[in-house]
Amino acid sequence: MRAAIALGQEARGRTAPNPNVGCVLVREGREVGRGSTQRGGRPHAEYVALQEAGDAAAGATAYVTLEPCAHRSERGPSCADILAAAGVARVVAALRDPDPRTDGAGFESLRSADIEVQVSLGADEAERSLAGFLTRLRLGRPFITLKLALSLDGRIALPSGESRWITGEEARLDVHLERARADMILVGRGTLEADDPMLDVRIEGLEDRSPRRAVLGRGPAPPGWTALAAPEAAFELGDVNDLLIEGGAGAAAAFLRADLVDRMLLYRAPIVIGEGKAALGDIGLNSLAEAHGRWRLSESRRLGIDTLEVYERVR
Amino acid sequence: MRAAIALGQEARGRTAPNPNVGCVLVREGREVGRGSTQRGGRPHAEYVALQEAGDAAAGATAYVTLEPCAHRSERGPSCADILAAAGVARVVAALRDPDPRTDGAGFESLRSADIEVQVSLGADEAERSLAGFLTRLRLGRPFITLKLALSLDGRIALPSGESRWITGEEARLDVHLERARADMILVGRGTLEADDPMLDVRIEGLEDRSPRRAVLGRGPAPPGWTALAAPEAAFELGDVNDLLIEGGAGAAAAFLRADLVDRMLLYRAPIVIGEGKAALGDIGLNSLAEAHGRWRLSESRRLGIDTLEVYERVR
Repeated sequence: MRAAIALGQEARGRTAPNPNVGCVLVREGREVGRGSTQRGGRPHAEYVALQEAGDAAAGATAYVTLEPCAHRSERGPSCADILAAAGVARVVAALRDPDPRTDGAGFESLRSADIEVQVSLGADEAERSLAGFLTRLRLGRPFITLKLALSLDGRIALPSGESRWITGEEARLDVHLERARADMILVGRGTLEADDPMLDVRIEGLEDRSPRRAVLGRGPAPPGWTALAAPEAAFELGDVNDLLIEGGAGAAAAFLRADLVDRMLLYRAPIVIGEGKAALGDIGLNSLAEAHGRWRLSESRRLGIDTLEVYERVR
Repeated sequence: MRAAIALGQEARGRTAPNPNVGCVLVREGREVGRGSTQRGGRPHAEYVALQEAGDAAAGATAYVTLEPCAHRSERGPSCADILAAAGVARVVAALRDPDPRTDGAGFESLRSADIEVQVSLGADEAERSLAGFLTRLRLGRPFITLKLALSLDGRIALPSGESRWITGEEARLDVHLERARADMILVGRGTLEADDPMLDVRIEGLEDRSPRRAVLGRGPAPPGWTALAAPEAAFELGDVNDLLIEGGAGAAAAFLRADLVDRMLLYRAPIVIGEGKAALGDIGLNSLAEAHGRWRLSESRRLGIDTLEVYERVR
């Protein structure tokens, strides 16, 4: 299951509005096929893995991060159907698919074809890898990540505006990996006008993973960019699973004020700036009591001399 | 040696201007005596350990964090002399004492009494435990620690001034332990006037470890307080090994601007504040390049839901 989750995670940012699923087929203790949802959402992970396995799929166990779909479309049969047709003996799924077209019907269909079904293995990790898709289904909006690169004292620039660079190369490379996992990146209008940022993925082999770009605030967007009048416009992004907010302080604060941030990536450099530009503007806090209990540290690692702390919104 | 360093560390904050030394006597693999520098700096650690060991000191090895003193005074013989008189066979010292009255003369004296001498075991750890004394001897001022309790985005209060509490109980308890290890605590005049802080050690059994109090800025100090006109006045504090800066933002920035901070304790709560009071004022930075290469993360630990990061000035 861990391998299936890794495959799914790798596909994050290029399958929306479909889920970034991973699938591994194992027969007699040996892997016979693997696959993930392909660019644009099709073919599905199960199809790719079955293609690779060929006849070896008969009698195999399929480890899959999400319930196989039950809905046939004009583009082909459902994953439940093709798993059955290939003679798969057992399906181990991490999560049930909340999509109303499946939502248990996939498991039902597999069981009626005499396939053994087991659910929940690796559920927490799979939840995390599919957070974009699941949030869209459950809350009607993308999973929203806020990235900040800041000093020990929470500054993102000198008073002069100088901000290159706060963090080092390893941290900046990690940001590009995060970009590759997003369907859309957003900046504030101020950042757009001041920096004209590329927001692309500058990693060899991943250049084609550069996500769509969006700007927060009224007024026209540059060609190829999407304009979001307010953070709440995220609810209208039907085809975005993962949205990454890259700044500046105003855009970041607007999303926090609307309580529309699910995860924060804090890239922190071992420097002190003192007077300078704050990471965040007004988030609408009235008391310290309100600030507590909202965020939980979920991961912390060193990136060169910098540190990355990942905080998740407690809901 | 580890036990000797722990003993010395425990005595930190109450031995100035003398060093907070630890000493353990071991004979035939068994500890026969232990001691640390006593309140006010006397008796010395070696004396205390020898008293406890009595006759068992004969033939023992003395593990001591600093070179035994060589200077006889009207208050008694030197430590080198009493170690020899007790018949100690071997002295293992972590560090040479830079005090010009000793500075190798202690080792000399021991060797001339036919005691085997070994130096450098545990030197790095001992350096850290004796940082106050050593900095005073080397740089002519105390070892200066800056403590900040801040949010993820570097705020120390809401715009209203509300700052109780940013961090939780475990973090605040740790601050009181740090206070117990300081000879003097300093706050800015603004903090003194706004908060009238006690700056005492509120830990059962350690209440008598509350350090002297100082305020930064011109003007009179309250009874019992010391006034420092500027950070540079730290060079006149002849009897302070460890100075702890507790805030606020102006005092902290003044010491950083003067490059008079050796260590930062960052107690960070998992909260976001947004608009609010910044942890630091102007520290005189002209470019980001100047900010880099100054601080190194030396320790990081969880304190309840908060984290403590310790940064040391790279010199």
